[in-house]
Parts: sequence; structure tokens; C-alpha cells
Amino acid sequence: MSTYQHIVLASRPNGVVSVDNFRLESAPIPSISAGQVLVRNHYLSLDPYMRMRMEDVKSYAAPQALDAVMVGGTAGEVVASNNPKFAVGDKVVGMLGWSEMGVDDGSMLKKVDTTHIPLSAYLGAVGMPGMTAWYGLTQIIKPKEGDTIAVSAASGAVGGVVGQLAKARGCRVIGIAGGKEKCSYVMDELGFDACIDYKGGNLYKDVKAAAPNGIDGLFENVGGVVMDAVLARMNPFGRIALCGLISGYDGEPMPIHNMRVLLSMRLTLQGFIVSEHMELWPQGLTETGTLVATGKIKYRETIADGLSKAPEAFLGLLRGKNFGKQLVKLI
Amino acid sequence: MSTYQHIVLASRPNGVVSVDNFRLESAPIPSISAGQVLVRNHYLSLDPYMRMRMEDVKSYAAPQALDAVMVGGTAGEVVASNNPKFAVGDKVVGMLGWSEMGVDDGSMLKKVDTTHIPLSAYLGAVGMPGMTAWYGLTQIIKPKEGDTIAVSAASGAVGGVVGQLAKARGCRVIGIAGGKEKCSYVMDELGFDACIDYKGGNLYKDVKAAAPNGIDGLFENVGGVVMDAVLARMNPFGRIALCGLISGYDGEPMPIHNMRVLLSMRLTLQGFIVSEHMELWPQGLTETGTLVATGKIKYRETIADGLSKAPEAFLGLLRGKNFGKQLVKLI
Repeated sequence: MSTYQHIVLASRPNGVVSVDNFRLESAPIPSISAGQVLVRNHYLSLDPYMRMRMEDVKSYAAPQALDAVMVGGTAGEVVASNNPKFAVGDKVVGMLGWSEMGVDDGSMLKKVDTTHIPLSAYLGAVGMPGMTAWYGLTQIIKPKEGDTIAVSAASGAVGGVVGQLAKARGCRVIGIAGGKEKCSYVMDELGFDACIDYKGGNLYKDVKAAAPNGIDGLFENVGGVVMDAVLARMNPFGRIALCGLISGYDGEPMPIHNMRVLLSMRLTLQGFIVSEHMELWPQGLTETGTLVATGKIKYRETIADGLSKAPEAFLGLLRGKNFGKQLVKLI
Repeated sequence: MSTYQHIVLASRPNGVVSVDNFRLESAPIPSISAGQVLVRNHYLSLDPYMRMRMEDVKSYAAPQALDAVMVGGTAGEVVASNNPKFAVGDKVVGMLGWSEMGVDDGSMLKKVDTTHIPLSAYLGAVGMPGMTAWYGLTQIIKPKEGDTIAVSAASGAVGGVVGQLAKARGCRVIGIAGGKEKCSYVMDELGFDACIDYKGGNLYKDVKAAAPNGIDGLFENVGGVVMDAVLARMNPFGRIALCGLISGYDGEPMPIHNMRVLLSMRLTLQGFIVSEHMELWPQGLTETGTLVATGKIKYRETIADGLSKAPEAFLGLLRGKNFGKQLVKLI
């Protein structure tokens, strides 16, 4: 093998993303200079934030460049190293993008221990999604025992961890997910107290029934009507960690009508991105890592097979077709 | 005079408030028991929050009861006292409602010094509106020198103080108000750096032009399209003090479309009501009182003459017909 494959952004979406926005390319395997590390990626992480990067708008990160390798978290193995900190065979996570291989100077690579935790989990419950869950819950929502916490996209890589961390803190946890199957998983496997199927047609009533004492904290991944329904039941001084707004990522209108609740209930809402809070990563990783290694945080993965399947899997993620963490297996 | 007049809530509004929702009544002047104080009110304060109280919905305060005297702040003079802490002739502020007179046990009355500050200002710049401005700006927005701060309803009793306090902190201050006359006042008299007429038809462009470096803090009194236009220019880590949403108080839909900015710019939004933060009142009063007494905070009043004019004046306030603090003069 003298070449490897990667996927670039071919064009920006005009509304809904299509597979035509991506292009699979081959490139010769690079040679590495002093200090560099060559990584063979085993897994590619697909995440909703990538949708925002595809737009050429002001946001928390520069837009994904056209004709450049799509941004993305990766987990893999060092196959060549000119860097004393990394040896061939080391398992590493990085941000090497939608690509079978990648070169890094080591500054963006992190060695991980796969003795008790599988490599793929470092892209999920003990990776960026897990840290996102931990940060939003513990640093913004700050739940107290007995609080009722709502989580949208509850079966997803972030939402599932949010709920399990909240349960571990003695909270009543209400998930919102799309479809009966996901809701059963959220309740039966992840141990949430209730889960509302937002496709069930009774969102407001169902939220009210699931939260007889109102809602003290909301971890929001979706926005739009799902967020409005939870807002309607928020208690005074409730906290909202605004993590994602996937319902509007394709440009659909996503108005919030219950703004008045933010005032009347004196709520605090904070938008965040976990990568700006890396100083807390060790603290969060200690908690989530221990809970994952001991089986107390459960998670599920949906795995697409091979890089060429990444665009289709990404489209599915935006439609909620995945179940738990969406990965692409590269080897 | 053996009777006095007061106004009760006769019916709840069905959408837009009308004068028919109120009823003027006469009552005999009460005799006072031990510990009580009888106050002749000189001024009644009219404030947007009263509109929310008229609805029978869950909010930060119990709804205004039907057939009871409308809630409201008052400034007046003690005319009879069985309470050693109050003497006849003392000037006091209280919450005696839409009423020419009121009885209090003293716990809700505060003596005020009118040597350097006129009595009416204790319902405005050095009263609840001024403290609201001070709290939202200093405790939620926390402006730094050089920040750009936007204030909606900028010519109002709260907005005018917000902007002048922010100017005193070295900020660039942008007001939003309805009409050229209000905007001229906001800039020329209150000293804001810019003021946008939201009726001018170019809200988004005007905000952009007035805030070439973006907006770091928003003091929101209005909601709806006004808030959306400011959201579109918010800088990373901006803070929003959500004080009022007057554009929706009559039940008009008031969706916010730019929720995505809260996420992409990692904003913090906090709804608040100043009466829950009374422990900071002395600190706020020291600052605003000094600035008002020395003429460094300017304000304007719109004064309706006589209690019977209160309903009409209140309707005008909700339509932005007032200029500065809306008062009713009772004596």
C-alpha cells in the first residue's frame, strides 16, 4: 500500500447536506520529517458540529476549507515515528480528519490506554462527547441531588453520558429522543427515569407528565420545538447548557417561542464548546473514565464500515438515524 | 376628604390591554392600628412588569388578583403614624399600588431623603428601575472598559440608566429606541454613542453600522426582532441580561430566530428580577444616587395627572408613548 484515502469538502451545502458535498481522494503515504508521527486511523468520529463547520459563517471555529480534508476526531495507531514521545504501536487519538492516515508533530496527539477502555470509546464516552456531557452538566447545570434534569438527543453520544452522570448525582433524568426504540434504550439500558419520543405527537403533554415537579436543568442538543417544550416546564433559577441545535443545522427555521420563560423563571442559559475548557479535561476524564471502565456508564455505537461510507453515515447522523455514537471503522 | 380613590384589576386582558380591564373605586380613608402608617401617595410608578402580573400564569410573582388594588410602586408622605419609626411628614417609597393612599406596617416602606434628589426619582433612576439597570449591567453583563454594550428601550427608565452607567465605565454604548425624537434624546442628552430607531426599517444594518467591533453585552428589555438584530452582532462570550420582553407582553408571538448565535458565540443569557437581589440594593443605590444627585445620570419623566389617568398612561407605556419614566402624579 503506497497510497491512502481521505475525504475533502467538495462544496458547501445549500440547505440540506448531500453526499455530493464530499469527495473521496487518494494520496501517496507521506514520509515524515524530524519530530513527526504517522498515524493509521482505526476510527473516525462523526459529530454534529461538523455540519456547522461546513458553512462559511462566523462561528467558534474557522469554516472547514473547501478541498481540504474534512475536520474530525480520530483514534488510531502510530505506524511510524520520528518523535521520541511516540513509539510504533502506540494507540493515539487526534484530530486527523476524515482520513485513513495522518501526520502530526505530536502536539495534537494523545496516547490512550486501551487496557480497560476500548479504543473507540476515546471518541465517545471518554472522548470529546463525554467531556462535552461532563462539562455542560457539572460546570453549567450544576445539578443538586433531587433536581430534575432534561436531556435532548438522549440516546446520542453526548446525551447518554449526560443522563448517566446526572443519575449518578441523584437526579431525576428525563430524556428526549426520536422513536420508541431509542426511548426504550435510554430508559432500559441507560437507566433514565423517563424518555419522551419527540415524534410521538404530544411533546408538551409528555414533558409535563414526565416532570411533575418541573425541570431544573436542561442539556440542549436539539433546539426548536424540543427546546420550547422543555422551556415551558422549567423551574425558577433553572440552568440550560446549550450544546447543540441540530434541528437547525441544515438551515431550517428553528425559532424559540418560549423566550418569556427565560425571564419569568429567571433562567440562565450558556452556550459552550468543550474545547475551550481543556483545563478541566483531566478532571472530567477521571470521572467518566472510571465510570466507563467499571461499566457504570454504558454507551452504544453505530459503526459505518470504511471511509467511503462516511458521508452517508454523516447524513444519517444529522437525521438521527444513528444509535449512540456514530463512528466510521477504517481498518 | 373622608374617602380616597384606588384602581383595581376588573378583568384580565384578552390579548391587548384596554382601559376596561381597570376600575376606579372610592373607599373610606382607613383608620390605623398600632404599628401602622397611613401614607398619602404623591406619585405612582407605572412599569412594564405590571402587564405580566395581569395574566394568570406561572411567573416570578403571583398574578395580580382580580378586584384587588393594582400592584405598583409609590412615593408619598406619611399623614398619620402609629409606628415610632415613621413621623408625619416623612417622605416614603413603598408598594402601595394604584391608589391615592395606603396603609403599611412599615416593613415595606422606606424613608427617603429628598434634599438632593426629588421624590419622584425614587421611583425611577434611584428606585426600582435604576436598581434594575445597575444589577443587570454590573452583575450579569459585567462590562469592561472598551466593551460595546447595547440597550433596548434605551430612552426608558431602565435603559437610560443602563447606558449612562456603562458610559461611566468606559464602554461604547448603543441604544435602540422607537422614533427619531427618542434617539436624539438618547444620544444628545444621555450621551450614548449611537442610537438606532427600530422603526427605521434597517434594524440589522443599523446595528451592524453602530457596532463595528461587535457587541459584548446586551441589556434586553424588548425581545423579538430587536433582540434578534442585536444577537446577530454579538461577540464571543457576550453576556445578555434579560430584563424584559415588552414586545410580547400583549401575547403577540415573539419568536427568537438567532438562537444559533447563543451557541456559536458561547453567549451567557440570564433572566432576572431585581427584587430577588435586595442584598445588593445599598451598593447599587450608592452609585446611582451619587450620580443622580450630581447630575451625572440624567433622566426624563412623563407624568400623567391624577389617578384616573393611570390606565391610559399604562397603555401608552406598553406602546412606547412615554418618554423616560412613566409616572402618575396623585397630588
